[in-house]
Amino acid sequence: MATKITKQTIDFSKWYKDICENAQLTLATPMKGVVIFEPYSFEIWERIQFFLNKEFKSRDVSNVSMPMLIPASFLEKEKTHIKGFAPELFTVTKIGDKDLKDNLIIRPTSETIFAFYFKNRIQSYKQLPLQLNQWASVMRAEKNTKPFLRTSEFLWQEGHTCHATAKEANLKSVEMWEVYNTFINEKLLISTIKGTKTEMEKFSGANETYTIETIMKDGQALQSCTSHDLGQNFSSSFDIKFLNKDNKQENVFQTSWGMSTRIIGAIIMNHGDDFGLVLPPEIAPYEIVVIEIFADKNSNVSKVSNSIKKELQKNFRIKLDNTNKSVGFKSQEWEAKGVPIRIEVGPRELENNNVVLVNRVNLKKTTINLKNIKTEVKKIMDSIQKEMTENSQKLLSDKTKEIDSYDEMKEEIVNKNICIANFYLSNENENQIKEETGATIRCILEEKPKGNCFLTGKKANSKVMIARAY
Amino acid sequence: MATKITKQTIDFSKWYKDICENAQLTLATPMKGVVIFEPYSFEIWERIQFFLNKEFKSRDVSNVSMPMLIPASFLEKEKTHIKGFAPELFTVTKIGDKDLKDNLIIRPTSETIFAFYFKNRIQSYKQLPLQLNQWASVMRAEKNTKPFLRTSEFLWQEGHTCHATAKEANLKSVEMWEVYNTFINEKLLISTIKGTKTEMEKFSGANETYTIETIMKDGQALQSCTSHDLGQNFSSSFDIKFLNKDNKQENVFQTSWGMSTRIIGAIIMNHGDDFGLVLPPEIAPYEIVVIEIFADKNSNVSKVSNSIKKELQKNFRIKLDNTNKSVGFKSQEWEAKGVPIRIEVGPRELENNNVVLVNRVNLKKTTINLKNIKTEVKKIMDSIQKEMTENSQKLLSDKTKEIDSYDEMKEEIVNKNICIANFYLSNENENQIKEETGATIRCILEEKPKGNCFLTGKKANSKVMIARAY
Repeated sequence: MATKITKQTIDFSKWYKDICENAQLTLATPMKGVVIFEPYSFEIWERIQFFLNKEFKSRDVSNVSMPMLIPASFLEKEKTHIKGFAPELFTVTKIGDKDLKDNLIIRPTSETIFAFYFKNRIQSYKQLPLQLNQWASVMRAEKNTKPFLRTSEFLWQEGHTCHATAKEANLKSVEMWEVYNTFINEKLLISTIKGTKTEMEKFSGANETYTIETIMKDGQALQSCTSHDLGQNFSSSFDIKFLNKDNKQENVFQTSWGMSTRIIGAIIMNHGDDFGLVLPPEIAPYEIVVIEIFADKNSNVSKVSNSIKKELQKNFRIKLDNTNKSVGFKSQEWEAKGVPIRIEVGPRELENNNVVLVNRVNLKKTTINLKNIKTEVKKIMDSIQKEMTENSQKLLSDKTKEIDSYDEMKEEIVNKNICIANFYLSNENENQIKEETGATIRCILEEKPKGNCFLTGKKANSKVMIARAY
Repeated sequence: MATKITKQTIDFSKWYKDICENAQLTLATPMKGVVIFEPYSFEIWERIQFFLNKEFKSRDVSNVSMPMLIPASFLEKEKTHIKGFAPELFTVTKIGDKDLKDNLIIRPTSETIFAFYFKNRIQSYKQLPLQLNQWASVMRAEKNTKPFLRTSEFLWQEGHTCHATAKEANLKSVEMWEVYNTFINEKLLISTIKGTKTEMEKFSGANETYTIETIMKDGQALQSCTSHDLGQNFSSSFDIKFLNKDNKQENVFQTSWGMSTRIIGAIIMNHGDDFGLVLPPEIAPYEIVVIEIFADKNSNVSKVSNSIKKELQKNFRIKLDNTNKSVGFKSQEWEAKGVPIRIEVGPRELENNNVVLVNRVNLKKTTINLKNIKTEVKKIMDSIQKEMTENSQKLLSDKTKEIDSYDEMKEEIVNKNICIANFYLSNENENQIKEETGATIRCILEEKPKGNCFLTGKKANSKVMIARAY
């Protein structure tokens, strides 16, 4: 907690770095783009795991553990797939002092090893749908790295399902897209834009990629998760067949879908402020921190703080800070860590049986009587939930600009906004925008809008979201 | 569920293989000793995670995620450590098509990367103890591999702690040893032998290794977890210093401790029988399976089965099998999977409002009236818990032989027993036993026993456990 936090308006990128440092989220290693996920960020990740696991398990998705290594030959079977990942692959060529004949690749994603599994285990339509998920870390070498947003190793979950029909697979990929969306809205309290990826941006090996884009306070978009309809692309390459109801051999239809530690970057940049992290209550490692002012083990302050902790811990994740640092230092520290409610217990307020509650979102202080603490905490926690949701909605609507011309678009991007526009989608047009403005087509919102392309004036074939992106 | 299960007495090793196959626990991959942990075994692992996480978190141990790769230079800093692991290391020498200057090693264990973290984050005694854990997979190339028992990649948790004094570190390693022991006794229902490892067998880099050995039905021992007192070995090599209370720089004192998917092998071979797995209730993915006899969605059988599931799922993990396979097939399948209680719902018994409960441990069938189902299930579940514990205790005591001479020892090993004996511990004597009998000193039980060495007749310097081991 040494460094001061740079203001967002001064240097957003420096602000982000300061937050990761001050809240002790990650520590860099000598390996490029590889970070250590420290206890505080890992606990946020565990909260995310808790909620997503509940969603997955209630949908009969089983967790498994696949090998971290994949034979190079597996990856080469799906041509688009290997082409997309080749430059980023970490390759094992030796075990002990022996050179390998067949190199092994650290998984950049696990479609191919899941394919191996499915091929070996699936015989009949009676086994379908087969729905698996794994929580794992994967590796893709990255040049420009930033904690959470872009790291060479990251943590994620990857769901992989097999179905008997194209329609079922498509419905599943859409269903999981919706599961993610609800989770991001209701647990992370972040407003979202849903759409599909363009040919250029979609997953190497997918028929369709469904994406959820969120907007950061600097006006950049962040792809927050994706769900892919893989059709029979992998099942053809890997010969994953099942006996269908008509007693005929057919390739299965597949989906895959994932959310990674990237999403922690979204939480930081969608909610965070100049004082640090602002964590959605359900995702926060601690929902409440109790701070002792003039801590002394035998004092009334200590007695009351402990009894507050004891009372509230039945319903909340709560931390007691009884270190003998100054109250200013402790407040700053827990503000930086984004704990939703801070309870300050000091000798002066205690004279009237009062303590002070501080709301992390609006920083308002409320002096309350001890006997009302449970009710007041509950009330403020609910209001935080509401206020964070509204703030995120407002951020999204303030930054979303419908535009009609290329000039407008360029201006809005410079103004750190995102654009919604009718567009004639083609690789050529997509490339032009990317090269000239640095912004990209984040997703397609509609396929046959009324109106003309903002870039070419031609009749539009899509309505798209355009933004600079992490 | 195709193959028949070989009887334990005919071929124990084949029996083990059949179980892993029939209960769909693991699938082999083309990579030597690397298996896929399928849903059923991974769910057992998740139950283990659940209980151990509770123990760790209640002791202020925080989970983190360290990189899966470690710079080769890190591993080389602790000489004993690298010596122990060198031949087993998976080495990344390339990223994309570029050769690396400094090779990266897939972690065989993470002491060295934790050391990097501790060096960067620890300044003062005020931060100690610092207690971290991670759930991860690690890789060590193995020649003779068997699912769970010895695989080139395995899942585990590894705890790593730093302390201000040698005594605190030692107490912590002993405490975690005790946490494991209680877990193995009370949740896995397996009887244990606790001891310390010999110089030859201890962890590369530890001062002392505390081990828990369990006995399998074929008389072989299985090292079920270890807890290491690392002293200042790693903190000296990695220069992990803290300012102590006397304002002086000192190297921290460390521990590490781990339990891996090996323990699933112990569950299989300590409790399993000729019909398959026998799972301790608290670890079983399902504690109860309800089997419909003559399944038909509109029948009374189906109605009752569903209402049983609904009633019991408040207190138990329960699975309803309403597939239209034969009752014999379904019974065999769930017996192989070791579900503690099977409830058979059939039209004949339902005429008298009865169902049949089958106890997986002793295979006893009890016909009970539907109105008593909750009480009866609870009663049988408790009796299973008790019976499994007693069976495991009996197995251990039947197989444990106190011996006085080398001839006796050799005979008991041939008879598939384990030996307790007074011993003059030296590398020479330890090697002699290993070479001549294939058995090893599993652990030291006592340091200064009364009596003479069974091998040399000299005054003994230790009481040891000797066994063939997985």
